[in-house]
Amino acid sequence: MTTTTTTTNTNNTNTIAVLHGAKDLRIESRPARHVDEFDAQVDVKATGLCGSDLHYYRHGRNGDFVIREPLAMGHEAAGVVTAVGKSVTHIKPGDRVAIEAGIYCTSCDLCKSGRYNLCPNLRFASSAKTYPHLDGTLQTRFTHPARLLHKMPDGVTFEQASLVEPLSVVLHGSRRSGVRAGHHVAIFGAGAVGLLAASVVKAQGATKVTVIDIDENRLNFAMEHNFADNIVLLPLGPRPTSTAESLDASKKTADSILAQSTSNGYDVVFECTGVETCMQASIFAAKAGGKVVYIGMGTPNATLPVSAAAFREVDLVGVFRYSNTYNDALGMFAANKLASADSLVTHKFKLNDSKQAFETLSNGKDSSNRPAIKIMIGDY
Amino acid sequence: MTTTTTTTNTNNTNTIAVLHGAKDLRIESRPARHVDEFDAQVDVKATGLCGSDLHYYRHGRNGDFVIREPLAMGHEAAGVVTAVGKSVTHIKPGDRVAIEAGIYCTSCDLCKSGRYNLCPNLRFASSAKTYPHLDGTLQTRFTHPARLLHKMPDGVTFEQASLVEPLSVVLHGSRRSGVRAGHHVAIFGAGAVGLLAASVVKAQGATKVTVIDIDENRLNFAMEHNFADNIVLLPLGPRPTSTAESLDASKKTADSILAQSTSNGYDVVFECTGVETCMQASIFAAKAGGKVVYIGMGTPNATLPVSAAAFREVDLVGVFRYSNTYNDALGMFAANKLASADSLVTHKFKLNDSKQAFETLSNGKDSSNRPAIKIMIGDY
Amino acid sequence: MTTTTTTTNTNNTNTIAVLHGAKDLRIESRPARHVDEFDAQVDVKATGLCGSDLHYYRHGRNGDFVIREPLAMGHEAAGVVTAVGKSVTHIKPGDRVAIEAGIYCTSCDLCKSGRYNLCPNLRFASSAKTYPHLDGTLQTRFTHPARLLHKMPDGVTFEQASLVEPLSVVLHGSRRSGVRAGHHVAIFGAGAVGLLAASVVKAQGATKVTVIDIDENRLNFAMEHNFADNIVLLPLGPRPTSTAESLDASKKTADSILAQSTSNGYDVVFECTGVETCMQASIFAAKAGGKVVYIGMGTPNATLPVSAAAFREVDLVGVFRYSNTYNDALGMFAANKLASADSLVTHKFKLNDSKQAFETLSNGKDSSNRPAIKIMIGDY
Amino acid sequence: MTTTTTTTNTNNTNTIAVLHGAKDLRIESRPARHVDEFDAQVDVKATGLCGSDLHYYRHGRNGDFVIREPLAMGHEAAGVVTAVGKSVTHIKPGDRVAIEAGIYCTSCDLCKSGRYNLCPNLRFASSAKTYPHLDGTLQTRFTHPARLLHKMPDGVTFEQASLVEPLSVVLHGSRRSGVRAGHHVAIFGAGAVGLLAASVVKAQGATKVTVIDIDENRLNFAMEHNFADNIVLLPLGPRPTSTAESLDASKKTADSILAQSTSNGYDVVFECTGVETCMQASIFAAKAGGKVVYIGMGTPNATLPVSAAAFREVDLVGVFRYSNTYNDALGMFAANKLASADSLVTHKFKLNDSKQAFETLSNGKDSSNRPAIKIMIGDY
Ligand SMILES: NC(=O)c1ccc[n+]([C@@H]2O[C@H](COP(=O)([O-])OP(=O)(O)OC[C@H]3O[C@@H](n4cnc5c(N)ncnc54)[C@H](O)[C@@H]3O)[C@@H](O)[C@H]2O)c1
Ligand SMILES: NC(=O)c1ccc[n+]([C@@H]2O[C@H](COP(=O)([O-])OP(=O)(O)OC[C@H]3O[C@@H](n4cnc5c(N)ncnc54)[C@H](O)[C@@H]3O)[C@@H](O)[C@H]2O)c1
Ligand SMILES: NC(=O)c1ccc[n+]([C@@H]2O[C@H](COP(=O)([O-])OP(=O)(O)OC[C@H]3O[C@@H](n4cnc5c(N)ncnc54)[C@H](O)[C@@H]3O)[C@@H](O)[C@H]2O)c1
Ligand SMILES: NC(=O)c1ccc[n+]([C@@H]2O[C@H](COP(=O)([O-])OP(=O)(O)OC[C@H]3O[C@@H](n4cnc5c(N)ncnc54)[C@H](O)[C@@H]3O)[C@@H](O)[C@H]2O)c1
Ligand SMILES: [Zn+2]
Ligand SMILES: [Zn+2]
Ligand SMILES: [Zn+2]
Ligand SMILES: [Zn+2]
Repeated sequence: MTTTTTTTNTNNTNTIAVLHGAKDLRIESRPARHVDEFDAQVDVKATGLCGSDLHYYRHGRNGDFVIREPLAMGHEAAGVVTAVGKSVTHIKPGDRVAIEAGIYCTSCDLCKSGRYNLCPNLRFASSAKTYPHLDGTLQTRFTHPARLLHKMPDGVTFEQASLVEPLSVVLHGSRRSGVRAGHHVAIFGAGAVGLLAASVVKAQGATKVTVIDIDENRLNFAMEHNFADNIVLLPLGPRPTSTAESLDASKKTADSILAQSTSNGYDVVFECTGVETCMQASIFAAKAGGKVVYIGMGTPNATLPVSAAAFREVDLVGVFRYSNTYNDALGMFAANKLASADSLVTHKFKLNDSKQAFETLSNGKDSSNRPAIKIMIGDY
Repeated sequence: MTTTTTTTNTNNTNTIAVLHGAKDLRIESRPARHVDEFDAQVDVKATGLCGSDLHYYRHGRNGDFVIREPLAMGHEAAGVVTAVGKSVTHIKPGDRVAIEAGIYCTSCDLCKSGRYNLCPNLRFASSAKTYPHLDGTLQTRFTHPARLLHKMPDGVTFEQASLVEPLSVVLHGSRRSGVRAGHHVAIFGAGAVGLLAASVVKAQGATKVTVIDIDENRLNFAMEHNFADNIVLLPLGPRPTSTAESLDASKKTADSILAQSTSNGYDVVFECTGVETCMQASIFAAKAGGKVVYIGMGTPNATLPVSAAAFREVDLVGVFRYSNTYNDALGMFAANKLASADSLVTHKFKLNDSKQAFETLSNGKDSSNRPAIKIMIGDY
Repeated sequence: MTTTTTTTNTNNTNTIAVLHGAKDLRIESRPARHVDEFDAQVDVKATGLCGSDLHYYRHGRNGDFVIREPLAMGHEAAGVVTAVGKSVTHIKPGDRVAIEAGIYCTSCDLCKSGRYNLCPNLRFASSAKTYPHLDGTLQTRFTHPARLLHKMPDGVTFEQASLVEPLSVVLHGSRRSGVRAGHHVAIFGAGAVGLLAASVVKAQGATKVTVIDIDENRLNFAMEHNFADNIVLLPLGPRPTSTAESLDASKKTADSILAQSTSNGYDVVFECTGVETCMQASIFAAKAGGKVVYIGMGTPNATLPVSAAAFREVDLVGVFRYSNTYNDALGMFAANKLASADSLVTHKFKLNDSKQAFETLSNGKDSSNRPAIKIMIGDY
Repeated sequence: MTTTTTTTNTNNTNTIAVLHGAKDLRIESRPARHVDEFDAQVDVKATGLCGSDLHYYRHGRNGDFVIREPLAMGHEAAGVVTAVGKSVTHIKPGDRVAIEAGIYCTSCDLCKSGRYNLCPNLRFASSAKTYPHLDGTLQTRFTHPARLLHKMPDGVTFEQASLVEPLSVVLHGSRRSGVRAGHHVAIFGAGAVGLLAASVVKAQGATKVTVIDIDENRLNFAMEHNFADNIVLLPLGPRPTSTAESLDASKKTADSILAQSTSNGYDVVFECTGVETCMQASIFAAKAGGKVVYIGMGTPNATLPVSAAAFREVDLVGVFRYSNTYNDALGMFAANKLASADSLVTHKFKLNDSKQAFETLSNGKDSSNRPAIKIMIGDY
């Protein structure tokens, strides 16, 4: 079968940042992957780095998923279409697109019912979960199924379109939570994810957003850029030595947060740290009939005050990535509904300087001590 | 049983604007209604007038409901508590409160399941539906069950707290519609209700709001005050002489609206005119899988393109008032989520000048031709 | 590209019943359609006929959709897999499968969000909506995308698996309606669709099911086979000459139905006739806060008592086919949850006798006056 | 104020079974509580005993709630109205009624929105949570707000009407779970609650119900009486000595349960034991996108595999009693939707023999070794 692809750019060399193992990141040149009938090729203009990229960079693995062959990182990305397969109609070379990184199967029960993020056959660019691995977006010629490329509305920047990925996680979470206008929301974690959650719930009419962290700089950042209505700085006490102590501390944490509430607790709580005490305190901070959304990862098993949840019917809702969010999120950027989100992009690096980008992310700040929240790698 | 009431104000004379029949509005003095165990008394500071008040004023009736005894109008109101019954704890004299006008029974199936707006035993202040009638809020000493009085947050004005009533209608409608961040919304009618609907869906993250009307001034007002992202002025053609003609016109109307849409139609359409052609066009303007919310009243029976709805699963969702909206709506005003809503209050009159207020509303504009959208009567 | 297909049956002659125009139904022999990579071929064992098949048969068209080239009818079908394309893994030759007739695109917004029945790119076997048309299942070698073939559980018959199609319509409707255990349900229409709706809501715990029709035989059938708890026979009065008369009649109809209700009306009403007066009466028969599900088709525009709906927040929910229903419906047959459904199959014909099958359906009864509810064509 | 009550029975002596402390249950004679304007008095005919009654009986307390004054047990009850207050209209003396034991306030945010089970002002008959305590139904003249008394349909027995209380818990849970026709359901615990959950989900169209327990007799009972489609007997291994061991065991438990599933796991899992390992295994047994409903109590804090839940978006939904269930549950009994539920009532005692009833419950079986599932005290 001969596939005719429409191309604007015949230069088919692909520069790619490949991780060969822990800290072993190399810039290489490879032929771009072939553009099949339903594929498109993208000149990636911006890729945001996230915690899982960092895990792979630091340890050559992310939890259970070990890099078994050289793998390109990156899955928060946007760029310009350079070629499309012959059956692709909704985009053409020259179009600016946001890239949805996960390739779901479209035919399992979960895909068919609209929950494709849970597709058992999912292959996710930059993840070592499936083998052979699927390279991420730190490339100059990224080939991907065209159906996963979303045209960017005018006025949306490549950085914003890259932020659509983490934004999708919290948008999906907010949909699952039933958050609505008039709600009070507490958010544990003032990282990129927590702050995007703050943006998203404000854009949906939440009338009070309390952000909680242990890092004063981040909390100040949250106030200055208008993500939070008020903040709670948690003290870093001694590590609890028992479950009882830990739950006690969590209850105190929740009390200090509830002291900020003019209501009987928060309608919705977003947990965006992955830390056990925050998972516990989230339950205490929610009001009766409220919801806790677990977005933070990294604690596979956690001791939770289940009675405090069940007695008050506080539901515990987990979030795994997103489905059907990209167009809405792009539209929200276009309509200026996420004003403060831009401020999250604290650093930008060229693709060739990817290693430096990872090192800055790893330090959590740059050489002049400026905190690194969202780092972009791209065409700078 | 002796009921002790806590009072700040011993002056128990009640000035009240009473409608004795069509156009027969009198300012009278009456003893205030007794404050029972669970009641409170409110010095009403602002009452907004709405279309149903106007119907009673003009015709001595509103549809099927005829005034059978002198009746005070007004149900969009706020004021200051002057006395509370002995079992009232959540408010006290001096508190500023928004008044929820409908007294539901709390024990029927609908009340118990949270849909008290549908309570068959409901008595609504200023409505002649039940007999004896229940006087509205155009009084200086309004006595009401305390559970229906909602404390106003600091910074919220009496006018805003009065707007909470019509706002509640559209907030309730928006909840029923499932409107969410990223949605495109079309609104038929640039009256107070339509424009509040625009405010509410914008506060919930709608990314495009198209407002449609036949009145150019109103549409300009909608653009100037940032209610709408774009507007559609409908031509006032000759009255359709058949159902076919009417539906044809509606389809054309919808086409002109869809031309404004960058999507395949509107996710949610709010019908806020009560006009049959708008009810028809709403269906055509909605996208497959979308919702039409019928808020406008006055057309008891309408010919609808039901196939166009059913084939595309466009659900038709009616709205009757509201339940469980007041606190959220007050919070939205307090959090400055409804910036443009204030602009709706175009005129203010003293209680003694109520007749003049009704006449202005009846004309749709004042003597200097300024359009009257929401008229307040109060302590001015 | 060479596609290897796994086949049990090398006999590739396909006998097919093709409609060439109104009443012009011919049994022909054609080569079976090629089995592509993701396709499978099915030896169809049973096809149920429905109203739209009949429309095409009688008039060579169904509403706006005109047969422009010879077209095979049939879309309620099941059979045995005879061949599969090389990428097909979930079924193999010899498997018994129910056939889902609509081929949706999997990549539009509606498909991605689980509402593939609304896919704008849908092609439906036996429908003349799209051109070239897609042949229906009245064939002995039906080739179709394998993802649309659902393995039948043991013990489920081909007739039951064929009934899964109309059952899916009402199952989908029941999901959209929110019907639940303890609900009272009214159903207009004792045809196959209405009676399947009765089965489905009983299987979901509805505690009272009232079936309404103008045909006494059908109502008796409904009682005898335990579809209904009670029935209402509507008189066939003179055709109403005005909207007012029609609505009046509908209100009376509803009153006679409500007289059967021990509650204040029906929680959910399924309209399965497509007749305007039934569409009207459905609204009056629903209780405040209830739902009306419009399944019946054939009345593109209807005059509805919209105030009676909106004042009581009776939502009008349209149904267009189904999505994500097949496995659940097959499971319900396997678990014996739809005991009476078998009784709906009143007649069976050989494929070669298709014309006689259509004629019987057209008469509504056979030569010995036995009513025809669901007619099967198949391997008899 | 004089309240006129309508009475059929002037005998106002009330025989009551009062708990004075652990194991100290006394039959006493007391004047019946006065019947106020909105109250009614009931001659209690049957009261089912539950685990919390037993806790009070055994320990004089139930978790944190200690009996501070003599208290009558019983809250699963039904009887005959003997008197009503003057404002009561929906019931009259002679009516048979099911008693809803919790008195909610009707005016807090939770009551107003239909979730009165979470009312912070709730007083529950037979519970020592609030002080003064509110006596339970082990009385012959039980006075209660009339709005909480639900007329029993003809044909429903007093025992069934008493079972409506625990049934309400699982009905409420099933509503919160979104369980629907075609679903596969796993239930941990073959006690009264677990088996009623089985009944309820079968009545709602669940096509496979797997019941899990450590007690073989109970599982056999579940199969014999048609509550379960299949059962899993869990081995009673050595107590796990670490969290890792416990989770490992839970995973194995889940595997043995999943082996019974023809699907990729259970759509909904009801946890009705309150045991930590079952709470863990519930998560593993649920399919991606499924729900776990936590009904069992007694483990205030539990270590849960939160990643296994979040990665697959298995939501954890707690249940605290019920709201708006009584009429539906009574209707289900009347319509014979819960055929096997009657079999749960294994023992009946006279009010005078209450102590013996509690002792039997405490032993879990009677003197002839017959297991005690649901014990009724009443007019036998
Ligand atoms: N569910 C999903 O699909 C999904 C997708 C993306 C990210 N995530 C997860 O979201 C989480 C947040 O991601 P991020 O990029 O914002 O990470 P981040 O590291 O930038 O932010 C985490 C924040 O939590 C704060 N924190 C740490 N310990 C704390 C404690 N004990 N109490 C309060 N705050 C504490 C940190 O100071 C930091 O500000 C991560 O766990 C990540 O794995 C989940
Ligand atoms: N459902 C409820 O509970 C509820 C509550 C309050 C108000 N309402 C209804 O909401 C509707 C709007 O109320 P309002 O106070 O904004 O009224 P309004 O009269 O101020 O506004 C109506 C608007 O509709 C426009 N309009 C009239 N005919 C039109 C046509 N053919 N095409 C397009 N636009 C047209 C008018 O120009 C006007 O701007 C009324 O019907 C009222 O009865 C319903
Ligand atoms: N929405 C969908 O996706 C979908 C799918 C399949 C079928 N349908 C529609 O469902 C409807 C029912 O299909 P069916 O196969 O059961 O048809 P059917 O003709 O067998 O049954 C219709 C029944 O309605 C009764 N009826 C006719 N006029 C009536 C009246 N005035 N009052 C009361 N009853 C009346 C008839 O006596 C008959 O029993 C049809 O309109 C069909 O087009 C819709
Ligand atoms: N959430 C609510 O509102 C609510 C209301 C009523 C009851 N409950 C709770 O529901 C639970 C069940 O109540 P019940 O009356 O049926 O109790 P029960 O004691 O009769 O039944 C519990 C069952 O769990 C079984 N079990 C015990 N340990 C087990 C283990 N490790 N693995 C598997 N099975 C095990 C027992 O053998 C028994 O059959 C209790 O915890 C009760 O407190 C909750
Ligand atoms: Zn999939
Ligand atoms: Zn009520
Ligand atoms: Zn599609
Ligand atoms: Zn309450």
